[in-house]
Amino acid sequence: MATMDTAIERARARRDETLAAYRELLGLPSVSTLPEHAADVRRTADWLAARLKSLGMQDVDVVDTPGHPVVYAQWLAAAGKPTVLVYGHYDVQPVDPLDEWESDPFGAEVRGEYIYARGASDMKGQLLALLEAVEALAAQGPLPVNLKFMLEGEEEIGSPHLGAFIDQNRERLACDVVLNCDAGIHAPDVPAIVYALRGLAYFEIEVRSAAKDMHSGMFGGAVANPIHVLSELIAGMHDAEGRVTLPGFYDKVRELSRDEREMLARLPYDEAEWLKMAGVRAICGEAGYTTVERIGARPSLDVNGIWGGFTGAGAKTVLPARATAKLSTRLVPDQDAEDVKGQLRAYLEANVPDTVAWELRALSNGPGSVMDRESAYMRKAAAALEAVFGRAPLFKREGGSVPVVGMLQARLGVDSIMLGFALPDDGIHGPNERQYLPNIYKGIETYIRFLASF
Amino acid sequence: MATMDTAIERARARRDETLAAYRELLGLPSVSTLPEHAADVRRTADWLAARLKSLGMQDVDVVDTPGHPVVYAQWLAAAGKPTVLVYGHYDVQPVDPLDEWESDPFGAEVRGEYIYARGASDMKGQLLALLEAVEALAAQGPLPVNLKFMLEGEEEIGSPHLGAFIDQNRERLACDVVLNCDAGIHAPDVPAIVYALRGLAYFEIEVRSAAKDMHSGMFGGAVANPIHVLSELIAGMHDAEGRVTLPGFYDKVRELSRDEREMLARLPYDEAEWLKMAGVRAICGEAGYTTVERIGARPSLDVNGIWGGFTGAGAKTVLPARATAKLSTRLVPDQDAEDVKGQLRAYLEANVPDTVAWELRALSNGPGSVMDRESAYMRKAAAALEAVFGRAPLFKREGGSVPVVGMLQARLGVDSIMLGFALPDDGIHGPNERQYLPNIYKGIETYIRFLASF
Repeated sequence: MATMDTAIERARARRDETLAAYRELLGLPSVSTLPEHAADVRRTADWLAARLKSLGMQDVDVVDTPGHPVVYAQWLAAAGKPTVLVYGHYDVQPVDPLDEWESDPFGAEVRGEYIYARGASDMKGQLLALLEAVEALAAQGPLPVNLKFMLEGEEEIGSPHLGAFIDQNRERLACDVVLNCDAGIHAPDVPAIVYALRGLAYFEIEVRSAAKDMHSGMFGGAVANPIHVLSELIAGMHDAEGRVTLPGFYDKVRELSRDEREMLARLPYDEAEWLKMAGVRAICGEAGYTTVERIGARPSLDVNGIWGGFTGAGAKTVLPARATAKLSTRLVPDQDAEDVKGQLRAYLEANVPDTVAWELRALSNGPGSVMDRESAYMRKAAAALEAVFGRAPLFKREGGSVPVVGMLQARLGVDSIMLGFALPDDGIHGPNERQYLPNIYKGIETYIRFLASF
Repeated sequence: MATMDTAIERARARRDETLAAYRELLGLPSVSTLPEHAADVRRTADWLAARLKSLGMQDVDVVDTPGHPVVYAQWLAAAGKPTVLVYGHYDVQPVDPLDEWESDPFGAEVRGEYIYARGASDMKGQLLALLEAVEALAAQGPLPVNLKFMLEGEEEIGSPHLGAFIDQNRERLACDVVLNCDAGIHAPDVPAIVYALRGLAYFEIEVRSAAKDMHSGMFGGAVANPIHVLSELIAGMHDAEGRVTLPGFYDKVRELSRDEREMLARLPYDEAEWLKMAGVRAICGEAGYTTVERIGARPSLDVNGIWGGFTGAGAKTVLPARATAKLSTRLVPDQDAEDVKGQLRAYLEANVPDTVAWELRALSNGPGSVMDRESAYMRKAAAALEAVFGRAPLFKREGGSVPVVGMLQARLGVDSIMLGFALPDDGIHGPNERQYLPNIYKGIETYIRFLASF
């Protein structure tokens, strides 16, 4: 306990250094989906490897994959103690639309109690907090627990090479539990632990009518318009009750128990606040479920992007030859991404008119997962949060995807503890992503307490 | 007649000069909708003014408008003869998608019997043919007819300032008939005269759910997706019979008479050929009408472009804040573009869910029109075509818009003779636009014969 208290004191004393390191990490534009940022992604991996070495971690390794590298490290000198595998990702989403940012997405500007940058919340802030916790503990002597690190650079593109990496490194990754820092809490002063995550299956659909764009006067009204066809397909993917119409989509969905619905209903939820956070004027979704259930426990389908025809300024009277949409489904246990691909293909086969050609491309996927809320590790995380925030954490389901949680459950048989300090209104993946700085500092202390509790 | 024959001989002897002038004109990228080409549009007006001066035209004037200039010229020394007002436009459509062009869109490459360039067919080729006809006639002595020229630079953006120009220049434009060169024939050896044109009303619709893009995991399934809403709106704009569902859309549509349907049914039309020309696999459209009727005599609605959300490479799990579509209707007599705007607004008011905000913007419009097939001027044009092509022309309705025809009918009370030599498969407005060169030369001779017949 003395070690823990001194570590917390040390962490509090070095907040300037913490912020400086945080800003340095945020300044690296590690956008994994854009080929032109590949070198930046690697520089970020190297930055983390150097930091892990300076903290006394061993076997630090930037491991190549067919895509972006995985940063591995370990420290295994805590004899008789369990081994915690820390998971994080150091890549970020693209920044467009750039003109909606109020400051440089990689400038990490501090305004009030927030820091603004792509990745500030998702998830370089969480990664930095964990590293600072290790720093503070390592300064006191040998660590109280065995640690391994697996930090990937492809989370934002669906972790296409992580499954193979885990299979090829089963022994190196052997552990008792995973500490997954890609997580958040409910509100600045309301700690929470996410125990369930939705999975993801991401696709691209292209509809083509002709080899080249046509003149809408000469052909309009007599040939198929791919934008119309694609619009009809999208419109038909939900019924009037807000349910997804892909054949068999709900067949494997694990229904909520009455107990779990009651627990979720007790979560603090203020519709006006939630609407403000989302920035929308009204809620809507699948009939028969609450907003908390719709986001955490029910699958969803959203078109993420669409384009076709003339999109410049002014009026061009073109009848487009093709239209394309990006579309993703959020999956819950026990849906399978491969099944969903088959369901989408069946939907298209049944509904695309024979006046056009079409193509379905699968871009990425990962399963959903649910963790045991009563495990010893979950209780340690809850105790650490309660000590720092002064109240017991809520247990939540989250709508986002962390494919690695399902992968590690399936491949190594270990559960993940989702422990991170992002907030629901951080605006991740959008413009002006931010992180509430006081919670970075609380996060460091929570991680110190969690790691010291073994 | 001697004058006419000598003029034709002269035109045949100077085909090299004709082609050189044509390529020079095609080399000027007069894209009216793109602000960065404004200077090019003006250079094109200046080029035409200089050419008209060199042909002996008088009062040549490049008249400023709030947009691109109108080129005016006249020659009124044919005492006792009627006055023909030549209409043309010297602006062109944008060239995107640029990567689908096989040669520089402004390089005017000749391959086989075709010349490839933006504007080759629509309509610099037709304009050039008319100028060459005047050249050949003017070389013989005083012209056989009074001529006025009104060449605009905004046809491809819906002629936003031409109505005001006509109103402000009623006396200067006074004439007996309009020769509109923005026209085509049926096939290389099948002359035709278009006696009816569809009008145009062009709009932009924007749907917004939030101030900024959201994370599809955190919000997907619980808030409105603007792409879904826009898709549903587009899908609902046609019924299962291919009819446009805007309330009142067909109320003022002038129905075809039995005679006219019979005449149109006699037009040569080969479905396989037509599909090949359109480059599509099947026809489709409003139930109860033929393809010829759908294109020429029935109104249509087409989405010309759509965009929203993430459209880059890879997978970005964004829930977009907005989606936008460009949409245009092709109108027939006696539909009114302002009515259509009201119908579209009423449709949106009735069908946009209150979970999103929306905006309707009118971009451009012009009425449809039908000309008298039995007038003396129409007979002169038919005789000129028959003399050059060796067969009587077909009378056709065309699907495209020439807003000026309706404007001149309404404001000056004069009919237009649509006489030009574009072909249906020239690919106007799309990549690899081309013009069949032998018909430019036949076109020059047809214009010589037409002008000499007064």
